[in-house]
Amino acid sequence: MSDPARLLELVGKGTATIGEVLAARVAATPDAPFIEHGARRWTYAEGWHESRRFAGFLASQELTGNRVATFLPKCPEAVFAWFGANMSRGAYVALNRAHRGTVLGDLAERSGAGLLVTDQTGWEIIGPLLPASLTRVLFIDSLPDTLPASLQAFTWEAIAASDPEIPLPSLPSDLATLLYTSGTTGRSKAVLLPHNMYCRGAANLAECFGYRSDDRFHDWMPLSHIGGQLHVTMTAVVAGACLVQFPAFSRQSFWDEVRASGSTVFSGFASILSLLLEVPPGPEDRRHKLRVGLIGNMPAETQSAFERRFGVTLLDTYGMSECEPLTLPRAGEMPPGSCGRICPDFDVAILDEADRPLPVGQVGRICVRPRVPYVMMLGYEGDSPATVAAWRNLWFHTSDRGRFDADGYLFFADRMKYSIRRGGENISASEIEQVFLEHPDIVACAAVGIPDKVMGEEVKLVVVRRAGASSDEAELHAYAKTRMASFMLPRYIEIADSLPYTDVGKLKREDLFASVRAAWDARAKRV
Amino acid sequence: MSDPARLLELVGKGTATIGEVLAARVAATPDAPFIEHGARRWTYAEGWHESRRFAGFLASQELTGNRVATFLPKCPEAVFAWFGANMSRGAYVALNRAHRGTVLGDLAERSGAGLLVTDQTGWEIIGPLLPASLTRVLFIDSLPDTLPASLQAFTWEAIAASDPEIPLPSLPSDLATLLYTSGTTGRSKAVLLPHNMYCRGAANLAECFGYRSDDRFHDWMPLSHIGGQLHVTMTAVVAGACLVQFPAFSRQSFWDEVRASGSTVFSGFASILSLLLEVPPGPEDRRHKLRVGLIGNMPAETQSAFERRFGVTLLDTYGMSECEPLTLPRAGEMPPGSCGRICPDFDVAILDEADRPLPVGQVGRICVRPRVPYVMMLGYEGDSPATVAAWRNLWFHTSDRGRFDADGYLFFADRMKYSIRRGGENISASEIEQVFLEHPDIVACAAVGIPDKVMGEEVKLVVVRRAGASSDEAELHAYAKTRMASFMLPRYIEIADSLPYTDVGKLKREDLFASVRAAWDARAKRV
Repeated sequence: MSDPARLLELVGKGTATIGEVLAARVAATPDAPFIEHGARRWTYAEGWHESRRFAGFLASQELTGNRVATFLPKCPEAVFAWFGANMSRGAYVALNRAHRGTVLGDLAERSGAGLLVTDQTGWEIIGPLLPASLTRVLFIDSLPDTLPASLQAFTWEAIAASDPEIPLPSLPSDLATLLYTSGTTGRSKAVLLPHNMYCRGAANLAECFGYRSDDRFHDWMPLSHIGGQLHVTMTAVVAGACLVQFPAFSRQSFWDEVRASGSTVFSGFASILSLLLEVPPGPEDRRHKLRVGLIGNMPAETQSAFERRFGVTLLDTYGMSECEPLTLPRAGEMPPGSCGRICPDFDVAILDEADRPLPVGQVGRICVRPRVPYVMMLGYEGDSPATVAAWRNLWFHTSDRGRFDADGYLFFADRMKYSIRRGGENISASEIEQVFLEHPDIVACAAVGIPDKVMGEEVKLVVVRRAGASSDEAELHAYAKTRMASFMLPRYIEIADSLPYTDVGKLKREDLFASVRAAWDARAKRV
Repeated sequence: MSDPARLLELVGKGTATIGEVLAARVAATPDAPFIEHGARRWTYAEGWHESRRFAGFLASQELTGNRVATFLPKCPEAVFAWFGANMSRGAYVALNRAHRGTVLGDLAERSGAGLLVTDQTGWEIIGPLLPASLTRVLFIDSLPDTLPASLQAFTWEAIAASDPEIPLPSLPSDLATLLYTSGTTGRSKAVLLPHNMYCRGAANLAECFGYRSDDRFHDWMPLSHIGGQLHVTMTAVVAGACLVQFPAFSRQSFWDEVRASGSTVFSGFASILSLLLEVPPGPEDRRHKLRVGLIGNMPAETQSAFERRFGVTLLDTYGMSECEPLTLPRAGEMPPGSCGRICPDFDVAILDEADRPLPVGQVGRICVRPRVPYVMMLGYEGDSPATVAAWRNLWFHTSDRGRFDADGYLFFADRMKYSIRRGGENISASEIEQVFLEHPDIVACAAVGIPDKVMGEEVKLVVVRRAGASSDEAELHAYAKTRMASFMLPRYIEIADSLPYTDVGKLKREDLFASVRAAWDARAKRV
C-alpha cells in the first residue's frame, strides 16, 4: 500500500471520501506512525480511533451532520476534530488562529458551526466574539475558571469517554470543509470544498512528489490554509507518512526541528526560503534528511540558491483554495520558474479579457475546468452571484495571470485581483481597511501590497484623518494591533490629505505605491 | 454575402453583437426582402431603419440601456422593438401572448422592463396586471379610449416621428434577451442570453441547414420561444432570407399560407407534423416550394411519414433556451432518431448521477460546456443558486437524458425534470398548480403530462377538494380558463380524496398517471 494512486483506486474507483481513504490507510498500515506532537504520539490506528471517538461525541451531543470549527494552533486535536466531523457527515472549519476582532467574529458567525474547539488562550480572544448560536465549546486543555452560564463547555475528557462511532457513509461530492479565502473587494469568501478534492488532490501530490510511507513531514502549515489541509495532512495520510507537527514556522528553530524530527519533507511559502537564506551559511547546512520541499510561487533565484546551499529539491505546485493542485511538478524536468504541467484532473486555458483562448506563450488569465467530478470548490457559501461570476462561460476564472510554454509547462505571471500576499497569507485589503475605518479619527483609507524581498509583499496603509484629528501613525498602528491578525497589520502607514480616485470614483490603487520611502515604518518606528 | 459563416467572420472574428450582424447584413443586401406581414413589406434597409427609429424613441424617452417587453402576436413591430432595444444597449423580453392572470403578472414584473409594447387586445389582458414600475406603454395599433392617468401611452407614430439612432456599440457578452423557461418545481426561470449566442447560433444553423438569401421562411413561431428568436428570425437575418410572418400555426391554413407565400423553409414542434398528417392525403400534397423543416424532437416514424408524403426534408436540432443549437443536423447523413453531431462551439458529455462520464452508447444526463465564449446563457436572473446548481463541476446540466453512438451522433432519450411538454411548449407543473390552489375549494393538486400522440403530452390535473366543497371538474376548468394560458389548461381533471406521497412527504407523481381513462376530459365534456 505504498502506492498512493493504488490506495485511492482501492477505495473508490477514482472518487472517494475522506472516511474511505482513512479506513483504507488504517487497514493497510495500522501501526505506522501518523502524528507526532512534542512528546505525544499516535499511530494511524490510534488517530483513527480518536477521530471516531470525536464522531461519537458529536453523536452523543446530537451534532451529527453539523459543522465543527477549531480555533487552535497546529495540533493533533484539530486533525481529529476535522476527520471526526467528516466521518459524521459534518464539515470542518478551521478559523485562522491569527485573526482578531471584527474579522474573527464575522468568520466565526459565518462558519455555521455547532461546536467550537479551542483552548484557554484561544478562548480569551474568540470568546467575546462568538455568535449567539454557538453555545457548545470544547477545550483541548482545561476549562477556564469562569464561563458564561449560557455556554455548554467540555474538555477532551468528553472525547476520551466517548464510544468510537462507526463512520457514517458520505459521498465524494459531500461538503468536507469550509475554507476562507481573502476577497478582492469585500469580506473573505467562504469556499465550500468536497471530500473528493482532498482524496484526488492528495493522491496526485503524493504520486508526483514521490512521497513514501517512511517519509516524515515537517508540518507547521496552519489547518486554516489549503496547504496545511491538503498538501500536508491529507497527502501524508494517502502516502502513509508521519506528520511531525510544530505550532508555527520559526527561522531560529527550523533546522533544529528538522534534525531532531528526522524530517524528510517540508512545505511552505517563498518567504520562508528567504528567511532561512538570511542566516549566514555554515558547516551544518547539509546535516539533515530533508529531500524535498513543496514551496508555492517561488522566484527562480531563491529556489536555486536554497537548493544549492541546503541540498534539498524544491518544487512549486500551482493552485488556490478553490482548486488544488492544478499542476504536478516533477523533479529533474522542470523549466526554471515553471510550476509544472497540468494535473490530468483539470483542463487549464489561458484566456483574454473576453474569454477567448490566447496562443501558447502569451500571458492571460488562468482559467480552469475539472475533468473529473468534485475536484474543486462547490461554490462560495452565501455568495452564489460571486460563484456564477467566477464560473462564467463554465470556466473557473482564477485571479491569476500566466502562460504556457510549447511543452505544456505553466508559468505563473502575476495576480489580477486586489489582495495582498504577505509571507504566504492572502490578505484582503478591504478587511484591513474596515478595521481602520472603525477608528473615530479616520475618514478614508486604503491598503496596498508593497514588494518586499523577504515577505513577498508588505502591507502599506494610506489614511485620511478627520479635520482636527491628532492620532499619529504609531497610535493608529497600536490601535489596530489588538483588532486584526498580526500578519494583516500594516508595516507602513502614510497620512494623506485625500485618496486618489478616477473620474468615475474608483480608487486609483496604483497611485498609492509610490511614496513608500516617505511612509512611517513600524520596524523603523519613525518616519 | 450569401455565405452566412463569412458574414459572421466579417462582423466579429467569431464573436459578434446583434447590431453588428444587422449592420453587415444591411450593408450587403439593403434592398432584399426582410419581413412580410399580410400586405406590409420591409426590406433589410427599411427594417434596420425602423429598428433604429425605435432606438431613437428609446433615447428620447431616456430609456437607453433599459429593457423593452412586448406582449404581442407575431408581428414586425416586435422584431423592431427587439433590435431597437439591443442597439441601444438594452435587452428584450417577449412575454408569451398566451399567458394570463397571476403567471403573466409575475413575468411582467420580473421582466424589469421600462417600456411595454402591446396592442389594444393585449392591453385588456395585461393592463390590470402591470407592475407599478412599468409606466410607459406603446400601442402598435391605437390608444384605447380610457387609460389610467399614471400611464404614459404612445402609438407607433412616436416611432415613425423619431430620428433613427446611430446604434450604440455593445459587447458580444452583453445581455440581449431575457427568456422565460418553465421551471421544475417553482416559477419559470428567467434565462439571460447574450448577443453572441444569437450571432454564432444563427450562423451555425444557417450553414448546416444550407439556408440561402433566396429562402423564404414560413414564420409563425412566437418570439417568446428561443425557436422564434434564434432558429427563425436571427437565422434568416444571417442568411439574408425573408421572413413571412403569420400570427400562429393553423392546420387549416398552413398549406395555403405556404403556397401563397412561396415559403421554402418552416419550423415547429413535432405536434404540428401530427396535426398536418391528420388531414387526408390529396393531390395537392406536393404542390409547394418547401424544401426543409427544422422540427424539434420528432419521433422517427412521424418524420419519415411526413417526408414521404410531402417531399420535405425534416431535420432536428437539439437544444434548449439556455443553449442552442447544440447539434448541427445535416441532410442525408442522419441516423434515424438522431439530432445530429455536436456543434463545434460546444462540448457535450453524457454523465451519470455522480457526474462521471458514461461509455459511448449508454444513456445518461446530457451536459454541456461552451468551447467559445458567450454562446449560452449568462445565468438565471434572480436565482444564482439555481445557476450554480445547474453549473456544478463546471458543466451545464440539462434536464435531458441521451446517448451518443460510435459515430458521434446524439440521440435524445427523455426528460428528467418535471415539466410537461405539450405541442412544443414546456409547461411548469407547479405554475398550473399555483393557479388552481388559489381556488377556495381546492386544498391540494398536482399536474402531470399524459402521453398523447398528437400533442406529445396532454395536461392532467388531480385535485383534492376542501370538505363540503361542491365545485365539479367543469367548474374548475372554467375557473382556470381565464387565469392561465390556453396551452397550460388541463385537458383531464380527476377529483381524488388525497394525493399520494412517499414516506418522506414527496409527491409520488408516477402514481398520478394511471387513471387517465377515469378522468374528466375537457374534449369529451363528460366522464
